[in-house]
Amino acid sequence: MGDTNGRKRVVIEHVNPEIDNGRFPVKRVAGEKVVVEADIFADGHDSISARLLYRGPDDKQWRETPMQFVENDRWQGEFIVEKIGIYFYTLTGWVDHFRSWKKALEKKFEAGQDIGVDILTGIAYIKGASQRASGKDAKRLSEIADFIGRREDSDKILLLSAGDELSILMDQYADRNFATTYDKVLAVSVEQDKALFSSWFEIFPRSCSSEPGRHGTFKDCERILPGIAKMGFDVLYLTPIHPIGKTNRKGKNNTLVAEQGDVGSPWAIGSEEGGHKAVHPELGTISDFEGLVKKAREKGIEIALDLAFQCSPDHPYVKEHPEWFVWRPDGSIQFAENPPKKYEDIVPLFFETENWQELWNELRSIVLFWIEKGVKIFRVDNPHTKPFAFWEWLMKEIKRDYPEVIFLSEAFTRPKVMYCLAKLGFSQSYTYFTWRNTKWELTQYMKELTRTYAREFFRPNFWPNTPDILPEHLQYGGRQAFMMRLVLAATLSSNYGIYGPTFMLYIHEAVPEKEEYLNAEKYELKYWDWDQPGNLRDFITRVNKIRKENPCLQATRNLEFYETDNDHLFCYGKFTDDLSNVILVVVNLDAFHTQSGWITVPIREFGIQPSQSYLVHDLLGDDKYIWQGERNYVELNPNISPAYIFRIKKRLRRETDFDYYM
Amino acid sequence: MGDTNGRKRVVIEHVNPEIDNGRFPVKRVAGEKVVVEADIFADGHDSISARLLYRGPDDKQWRETPMQFVENDRWQGEFIVEKIGIYFYTLTGWVDHFRSWKKALEKKFEAGQDIGVDILTGIAYIKGASQRASGKDAKRLSEIADFIGRREDSDKILLLSAGDELSILMDQYADRNFATTYDKVLAVSVEQDKALFSSWFEIFPRSCSSEPGRHGTFKDCERILPGIAKMGFDVLYLTPIHPIGKTNRKGKNNTLVAEQGDVGSPWAIGSEEGGHKAVHPELGTISDFEGLVKKAREKGIEIALDLAFQCSPDHPYVKEHPEWFVWRPDGSIQFAENPPKKYEDIVPLFFETENWQELWNELRSIVLFWIEKGVKIFRVDNPHTKPFAFWEWLMKEIKRDYPEVIFLSEAFTRPKVMYCLAKLGFSQSYTYFTWRNTKWELTQYMKELTRTYAREFFRPNFWPNTPDILPEHLQYGGRQAFMMRLVLAATLSSNYGIYGPTFMLYIHEAVPEKEEYLNAEKYELKYWDWDQPGNLRDFITRVNKIRKENPCLQATRNLEFYETDNDHLFCYGKFTDDLSNVILVVVNLDAFHTQSGWITVPIREFGIQPSQSYLVHDLLGDDKYIWQGERNYVELNPNISPAYIFRIKKRLRRETDFDYYM
Repeated sequence: MGDTNGRKRVVIEHVNPEIDNGRFPVKRVAGEKVVVEADIFADGHDSISARLLYRGPDDKQWRETPMQFVENDRWQGEFIVEKIGIYFYTLTGWVDHFRSWKKALEKKFEAGQDIGVDILTGIAYIKGASQRASGKDAKRLSEIADFIGRREDSDKILLLSAGDELSILMDQYADRNFATTYDKVLAVSVEQDKALFSSWFEIFPRSCSSEPGRHGTFKDCERILPGIAKMGFDVLYLTPIHPIGKTNRKGKNNTLVAEQGDVGSPWAIGSEEGGHKAVHPELGTISDFEGLVKKAREKGIEIALDLAFQCSPDHPYVKEHPEWFVWRPDGSIQFAENPPKKYEDIVPLFFETENWQELWNELRSIVLFWIEKGVKIFRVDNPHTKPFAFWEWLMKEIKRDYPEVIFLSEAFTRPKVMYCLAKLGFSQSYTYFTWRNTKWELTQYMKELTRTYAREFFRPNFWPNTPDILPEHLQYGGRQAFMMRLVLAATLSSNYGIYGPTFMLYIHEAVPEKEEYLNAEKYELKYWDWDQPGNLRDFITRVNKIRKENPCLQATRNLEFYETDNDHLFCYGKFTDDLSNVILVVVNLDAFHTQSGWITVPIREFGIQPSQSYLVHDLLGDDKYIWQGERNYVELNPNISPAYIFRIKKRLRRETDFDYYM
Repeated sequence: MGDTNGRKRVVIEHVNPEIDNGRFPVKRVAGEKVVVEADIFADGHDSISARLLYRGPDDKQWRETPMQFVENDRWQGEFIVEKIGIYFYTLTGWVDHFRSWKKALEKKFEAGQDIGVDILTGIAYIKGASQRASGKDAKRLSEIADFIGRREDSDKILLLSAGDELSILMDQYADRNFATTYDKVLAVSVEQDKALFSSWFEIFPRSCSSEPGRHGTFKDCERILPGIAKMGFDVLYLTPIHPIGKTNRKGKNNTLVAEQGDVGSPWAIGSEEGGHKAVHPELGTISDFEGLVKKAREKGIEIALDLAFQCSPDHPYVKEHPEWFVWRPDGSIQFAENPPKKYEDIVPLFFETENWQELWNELRSIVLFWIEKGVKIFRVDNPHTKPFAFWEWLMKEIKRDYPEVIFLSEAFTRPKVMYCLAKLGFSQSYTYFTWRNTKWELTQYMKELTRTYAREFFRPNFWPNTPDILPEHLQYGGRQAFMMRLVLAATLSSNYGIYGPTFMLYIHEAVPEKEEYLNAEKYELKYWDWDQPGNLRDFITRVNKIRKENPCLQATRNLEFYETDNDHLFCYGKFTDDLSNVILVVVNLDAFHTQSGWITVPIREFGIQPSQSYLVHDLLGDDKYIWQGERNYVELNPNISPAYIFRIKKRLRRETDFDYYM
């Protein structure tokens, strides 16, 4: 029994968002809202008041905003995060005797009961507030108490008691002596805009040469920047740029023995020419790389590097730090394996080493090295094969000094492991989108991402393909399937990316019975003719332009689903809070046949009356239609277009609309 | 970076049960199981092992039981709580290199790969375990390592590696150096059996007189004990037994002014004759009361007292402790009100008093006083109008020395407040059952109670009626409605109770337009003729007998719902884990008409093949039927019986059944 504890009557529980009991922060980008809800209640019938407290990176003390009662003891408040860094929030609530009094007074007055003594009680509350206030507020409260005390005009007393002026003052100087403050302080990690809205283009820099057969360079990458910018991408992700090991180098099509001239997998990092802080000599120099970063930024493009914390057997670490690797009883080094599969060109780092702290520090120094060279975005290779504690530490260390840095988790693994990594700090994550095809699958998955607690910490980045994955539907669905998957990725998720040149050219030859590319770029030098007939550059450009011009597509959590009467037609929408931007997407999930049906447009949500017509503008085909009512007919021939991306506008007002309209 | 933290690779999260982050214990009675689940995983592909740790009230150290992998990184373990008191549990998990090795070895062997070096690795693991072991286990492990090392017979080596003997030893002496232990220790509050399974009978002791007009006594209560025991009740709950105030005493039908001879509401506690530690002189003496408790216990009945922490204006506390009450500015005492309603015969205690600690201590002394007189069960009146912190403290204080004491929360209020009280320690709670009538309402509510987190802490006690509530369906549904509601209460919930005599005699005259009894017993002396024609004693007796003879009805969480094609037929069932006791209930929710339809019996769940016939024995009507298959026809005429309570038995085996059967 503390001194005042027994008199704290308010309970605050079930706060949302709160990830794993506040163990992890929720995520936002600057300018986003944090809506906080909680069950807040007290014993008995007294009224209560509650405040949301929050604090930004530069704030010395809490800011306060009132919480509103929603229903069933649920309260809600919100604040905007304005700056990159860590915000904190918590809640407080108290039994508000003045409010209880006001409510009771009104009821008694209505019931015609005597309120003489009640008025005296109220005066005491107001005088108490006056004592807690100072200056003109104190004076005004005291005046009000005196006026009520004179009891000259009971109607006026009631008006004054119920009025805004007194309410605001009493709120401001409420008696919070026995307030309950929530026992946890929760955090929001606020990141730069690209954490939420980004369009990625992945390339193998060595394949960017302007002529077939020549090894590409950073200079070649500079050459293609305008084309990438024109298509509307703002992140250019380079597969690893480091020296590639020679021992056990893989040949074309992942063969065990490389032939003369085989370039090997860029993920087999490290040779006598250096490790994770070196660049492959044929790509150019560190200074060339810095030049590329600079040039890209001028075009609005960030260069993303691949953080693959693993080594080729030739990596300098192997000699310098043998204790960072597993050595088998026969004295050989343990290469990567997932029995019976073997990856002989790669040796994993041994995180259970006694020198784990030294190892962690070295890996951090790699990240810092590239940050110094201008890199702000890292795509992390297989983070799920390194300890969780390591990632949490690393990202905290980096973000402390470089809060603008973004990490993308390339964990294609079990759901709980993927979520765990996201909670630990990854800004974005690869997803199962790559294998979600039917309306049911897509709906279920999108609901999981946008309506469960994952929405607060797991920011999806949707990839229709990657160098490792050519999914079945792209193997067989033709050019139309690539277009359909692009529209889905780019409109369902505000972050998306493509494994660029192969996607643009809808490369779809796979290793038989596998979801792997035949003659994969991973193991050989490629030359891509971006202007090859049938290429998807224009289509991609159009989709990215739509994303850029429609703010509602620059978020993911705002996704809504709409009914269709045909399972091949997938209909969904996004809109801004103020309804100034409303997008409705209809995708034909069947890449082979024309599909048609009726979709249900939630016009009331959009502020449109059933009697009003409204304009729908298909931003993809640039056609305009005038619709009326909820149900409307659509037809999509995949050979013409895989989807409609409708922008919905209320029509210009006519005089006769006014009655319905305001 | 702690010394070994960076090498702890296992994550344990989303433990269930865990109420509000472990802030509150889950509830069980002795002999029940606690099934614990958690997401447990590590980075990479290594195998892991996990243990559930638990500790009873008398245990000096943790006991361990292995957890089993379920699916999707979910693990499960369980333990039985055997003693009344507090149990604790937590979890631990580690990367199990020996298990990973064993799995890899098998895969490599199957793929025909060389396992020479792997065997050396395995030997090192086994030798490590041998060093952690002692005695004959150490010796045996060392022998096995040596045998494998000799490599004489690779088939035998593989057999040995995969065999039980080595697995058990390696499990026992696993390397748990980098084990992760869950960061919270969770609690189980284990209570006496009646917390889970009890049948309550509520009486006004003053109305138990053997002749009309005479004030009943504790001796009269003794007289009716055999009748109550015969009906199968095991808790006799007495409305408050204390002196009743005279100031503002309510008259019959809650009138403001009592007439000569009016007895007043027993909840207006306290007069010059004493307060909460005194008994109403007309009921007898404290010693009479102790006699009643003893006699009841001999018949298997516990006496439950009403803890109503409120006073009449005449309560001795008002004079002795004026600071425990609210005084209005005009010097009058504040009586209870919920504007515009007023309860002039009651003054609430002021829990915000500066002397709150003294007040709390005094209230505790009341509970201790009655415990000394033999009371083990308290029905707490309106707990939601006293601070939550008080209840948590009080019940902890009491349970520390008297863990067998049961508290029933009479909080008919908002859902979150009811749940909060249950979490704080109430063993049982009043519910919304009283107003849940349709199949949809009952199903939704039962799902909330048995399938959400409420199942772990909120033990419902179902009351078809109370002295305050005569619900509409009992006002109009006749005798049949009483029978129907009794069956529902007694079979849906393992704890249930009736406001006894009025229920037995299906008293159903209400104040017009209200759910209150006309001429309520609360305000007047009553005489009930238990043998009045049409009384429900036999029916009640039968239902309680069925409850007593069928263990599956002695729990609530085991409820399952079954389909019917008629919305008036509500079908549900319960069964024991071992299927030795299976009950299927079909209730006709329409008290006015015969209803019929097809029900779906989940025969496979009960271990019955579609080709088998099975015996269903209606324990209510004592009829037997032989059914076959899932779908079966039922018809219920409310004038004959409101329900079937089928006990389902597989038929005696015939030889031809054997194939299907075992």
